[in-house]
Amino acid sequence: MSIANIPFTVQGRRYGPPARPVAVLCLDGCGDEYLDAAMARGLMPQLQAFGRTGYRGMARSALPSFTNVNNSSIVTGVPPSVHGICGNFFFDVARGQEVMMNSAEYLRSGTILAAAARAGRRVAVITAKEKLRDIFAHQLVGPPPGGAHGIAFSSERAGSARVATHGVDGVEALVGAPTPAIYSGEASLFVLRAGAKLLEGGMADFMYLSTTDYMQHRYPPEAPEILDFYRECDHWIGRLVAAGAVVGVTADHGMNAKQQPDGSPNVLYLESMLASLFEFDIRVILPITDPYVVHHGSLGSFAVLHLPPGEAVEPVARCLLQQTGITEVYDRHTAARKLELPLDRLGDLVVLAGRDVVLGRTPAQHDLSVLEGGLRSHGGRYEEMVPFLLSEPLRPEYLRRAHGDPRNFDLFDFTLNGTER
Amino acid sequence: MSIANIPFTVQGRRYGPPARPVAVLCLDGCGDEYLDAAMARGLMPQLQAFGRTGYRGMARSALPSFTNVNNSSIVTGVPPSVHGICGNFFFDVARGQEVMMNSAEYLRSGTILAAAARAGRRVAVITAKEKLRDIFAHQLVGPPPGGAHGIAFSSERAGSARVATHGVDGVEALVGAPTPAIYSGEASLFVLRAGAKLLEGGMADFMYLSTTDYMQHRYPPEAPEILDFYRECDHWIGRLVAAGAVVGVTADHGMNAKQQPDGSPNVLYLESMLASLFEFDIRVILPITDPYVVHHGSLGSFAVLHLPPGEAVEPVARCLLQQTGITEVYDRHTAARKLELPLDRLGDLVVLAGRDVVLGRTPAQHDLSVLEGGLRSHGGRYEEMVPFLLSEPLRPEYLRRAHGDPRNFDLFDFTLNGTER
Repeated sequence: MSIANIPFTVQGRRYGPPARPVAVLCLDGCGDEYLDAAMARGLMPQLQAFGRTGYRGMARSALPSFTNVNNSSIVTGVPPSVHGICGNFFFDVARGQEVMMNSAEYLRSGTILAAAARAGRRVAVITAKEKLRDIFAHQLVGPPPGGAHGIAFSSERAGSARVATHGVDGVEALVGAPTPAIYSGEASLFVLRAGAKLLEGGMADFMYLSTTDYMQHRYPPEAPEILDFYRECDHWIGRLVAAGAVVGVTADHGMNAKQQPDGSPNVLYLESMLASLFEFDIRVILPITDPYVVHHGSLGSFAVLHLPPGEAVEPVARCLLQQTGITEVYDRHTAARKLELPLDRLGDLVVLAGRDVVLGRTPAQHDLSVLEGGLRSHGGRYEEMVPFLLSEPLRPEYLRRAHGDPRNFDLFDFTLNGTER
Repeated sequence: MSIANIPFTVQGRRYGPPARPVAVLCLDGCGDEYLDAAMARGLMPQLQAFGRTGYRGMARSALPSFTNVNNSSIVTGVPPSVHGICGNFFFDVARGQEVMMNSAEYLRSGTILAAAARAGRRVAVITAKEKLRDIFAHQLVGPPPGGAHGIAFSSERAGSARVATHGVDGVEALVGAPTPAIYSGEASLFVLRAGAKLLEGGMADFMYLSTTDYMQHRYPPEAPEILDFYRECDHWIGRLVAAGAVVGVTADHGMNAKQQPDGSPNVLYLESMLASLFEFDIRVILPITDPYVVHHGSLGSFAVLHLPPGEAVEPVARCLLQQTGITEVYDRHTAARKLELPLDRLGDLVVLAGRDVVLGRTPAQHDLSVLEGGLRSHGGRYEEMVPFLLSEPLRPEYLRRAHGDPRNFDLFDFTLNGTER
């Protein structure tokens, strides 16, 4: 079946898709160290070949280095300041309440996926976590004018996918596997496997595949369990290549151990600390918080602080920056500018923590007993750099850009516009 | 010949060397991408084996991410706030002049090398650039009580090494090669080759080998020239392993292209910019500046600013942080604390630039025509993370530390104390 290669535009950027299948992958929490460890053992021959015959380098993700922030950036091609998703939730000052942002309602940009579907591509988006499906499916699934006959489902709810709502059914039969448990490596492998099956079956020719980082939160790069996981990932990436796809691979964020030398979590409890230093209440928002607490216990390396109206932010900022483990502190306007965040969804201060440090509220608000095998997490500057790989050689202009400061949310641009073919 | 394994202490840290040879390598400017590119092509089998049978991960270097700062840290095991070397030069406010810091006169710590020599090890330090030799040779070469009968020479001046001053002579004959040109890959390969020859000849059993980054300044990771270079490096690393050494490898800093999309250098000229905004003169110190201008044209991603006495720093800091390309701005005390710098060798403000941005003074003060093949440079946060490899497996305690926030200047600790043997 012929494949449409009609250009389309999203957020001012023109995308000229090739007349062959395209698969863009976001490997959740895939710090470059994971690829190094697996490749050193010869477990990822397919992806390693990208480095020889295509491109392997590093890209800068969007901050905070969280999953939905970066997935939203990748599918829109723009930073959070434009698309509006800056965490799993934010504190809505006007309404005086914490608001979940895992919904297309908060997305301020159309997606490359929906635009590709409108340009005639057979689009499929598959995510491990159901929480991301709504954003990915935005204007993609359902009847026109909103929907565009794309496919969007999660491995977490694979068994519930129906044509009317997901653009597909019979996913378990297609993939040849049951709906996986969300706290498993299989939750991610199911995504890649489903992508390969859709591609091989001619059901899609333009795909976005987004895994989950349960394995990376749990295991360091050398652990046998995660080496097995990456070997399996590589197999399915190879299947995408074999089916003729141009493949682009990146991550939403890296992953670091956030532990004391004795293996216990290395947490700075900001509300507790600030309560002992200031007479007014400071609300600490941890935008990593989501229903998947086993991953990280709501502990990441990024926090947003709200002060009572009228209190000066400067003394609090100065005090925070004195603390060992806190690496950056910005007032609202500076954070919006330097970290590319939406001003109206920020608090008064933004705080980032170091490579081995996470930020919490109070000890009582975090159940560390749910953590399996120590704390590994992300959210800060030290999880900002991520792998950036293409299956095909880059054109000279894009190779120059790749050597500069490419962003992980440039991956559709690189995959569609930047490869030689 | 038996090898001494008497413990020694430097800056409060105890080092217990194994009774076998030790080689610690600092591969100048070796961003992890260089290893990835060479390994993907199968050109570094020896170092790739470290990832399987020893350890490969990432470590955080000292800021500014410059050569002498980090080499000084590695050989002392402490950050610049302790050892005092925070750039190639600084502005001495009391004397009103810019002072070169490439001399042991400015080093405030003893070195691990000298301590190992005093503990009976046969120590050799080899550097590509002569500028570093004085710091490395501190208390190591020359008659007691200062000197300890070690060997210290540079490939740049290999032909000038004499027993009385360098602990060795006949270096060219030993290595089997003439003194290399400093602007060459051979300047670095000569270091590794000399190390292997000293080890194989029983002339040293405790070595620090420090290369130069001419090749990395000039070539991106995929360039055939630098792939050849790394293939050669790997050969000599293999020779060290084959001679029985425990080998540790890190870098002083990473390396990024600092170019506009058209390939021209991406420079923020701070003195020019500030002159148009403030009525007083602001002195910009670029501590990357050294005699080896072909590498980088004195352009890096780190600058120190001096204001006239009595002028407020806050408005200047605020103005700088507004600029696209500037990522961090700290006043003197905050910089000392957060970047671990010596307070008395800082200016009023410290400025860091982004992944593809360098900081200059005025256009007239930088001769961009000397740059060969575009500008690649370092000095900022985006060149902070460096490879960290060991030839032997890490003990559990050290593996936990490696997963946390190891520093490149912990490498002697990891190599001497942290490996299983």
